[in-house]
Amino acid sequence: MSKALDPKCPVARTLDIIGERWTILILRDLFLFGPRRFQDLQNSLSGVAPNTISARIKTLEEAGVVSRELYSEHPPRAVYSLTERGQALKPALLALRDWGEEYTEGPPAPRVTEPNRIESPVTVD
Amino acid sequence: MSKALDPKCPVARTLDIIGERWTILILRDLFLFGPRRFQDLQNSLSGVAPNTISARIKTLEEAGVVSRELYSEHPPRAVYSLTERGQALKPALLALRDWGEEYTEGPPAPRVTEPNRIESPVTVD
Repeated sequence: MSKALDPKCPVARTLDIIGERWTILILRDLFLFGPRRFQDLQNSLSGVAPNTISARIKTLEEAGVVSRELYSEHPPRAVYSLTERGQALKPALLALRDWGEEYTEGPPAPRVTEPNRIESPVTVD
Repeated sequence: MSKALDPKCPVARTLDIIGERWTILILRDLFLFGPRRFQDLQNSLSGVAPNTISARIKTLEEAGVVSRELYSEHPPRAVYSLTERGQALKPALLALRDWGEEYTEGPPAPRVTEPNRIESPVTVD
């Protein structure tokens, strides 16, 4: 963790926990899909280094936002979930989503190719 | 700007604009105090390099979240304000603040030193 942004400000204290690059997208996945394995998060955040994902999860665990449960001992494999404190971030996530939906533009919707139509041959009377 | 996080996701698209370190604290100041000069932002975010603050403001301007108005031509001095699109981020800022107030701890309140009291001398009957 880098140094605290501004301990007197509750916005800054929130960002100390969830404000690093990728962290909010990890939370997004836990909100959207429920408990996730490390591999699930890595597949979703393709292109992000695994140790970046680990570091973000560790910060979230230490802050009590995410909990970790082993589902296999050999090899050790964990599943991550939102705690109650994590669930309480829902209004923030929804507000960020709503703003993005209203004020930013996503990629164009995929072109739907129409099924080939059988054209009636042009006839000249 | 670093590369887009995930163009298909509205949360990620919002973070592409406001998700970099310090950006949300610039927005916080504009919400709390109204239009701010560069110097005001720099005083508030003490310890942040001026060119980091400039870069963040530039991203916000390019995204139409903040507008810039010159109040002096020589030397050029600008004041920054939230646009309508910027004002629309209020629910997100409030949600981040509320969570911080509820789930994180600020520094202890400053100790109030009591004025010296004149003690009545201990008397032994």
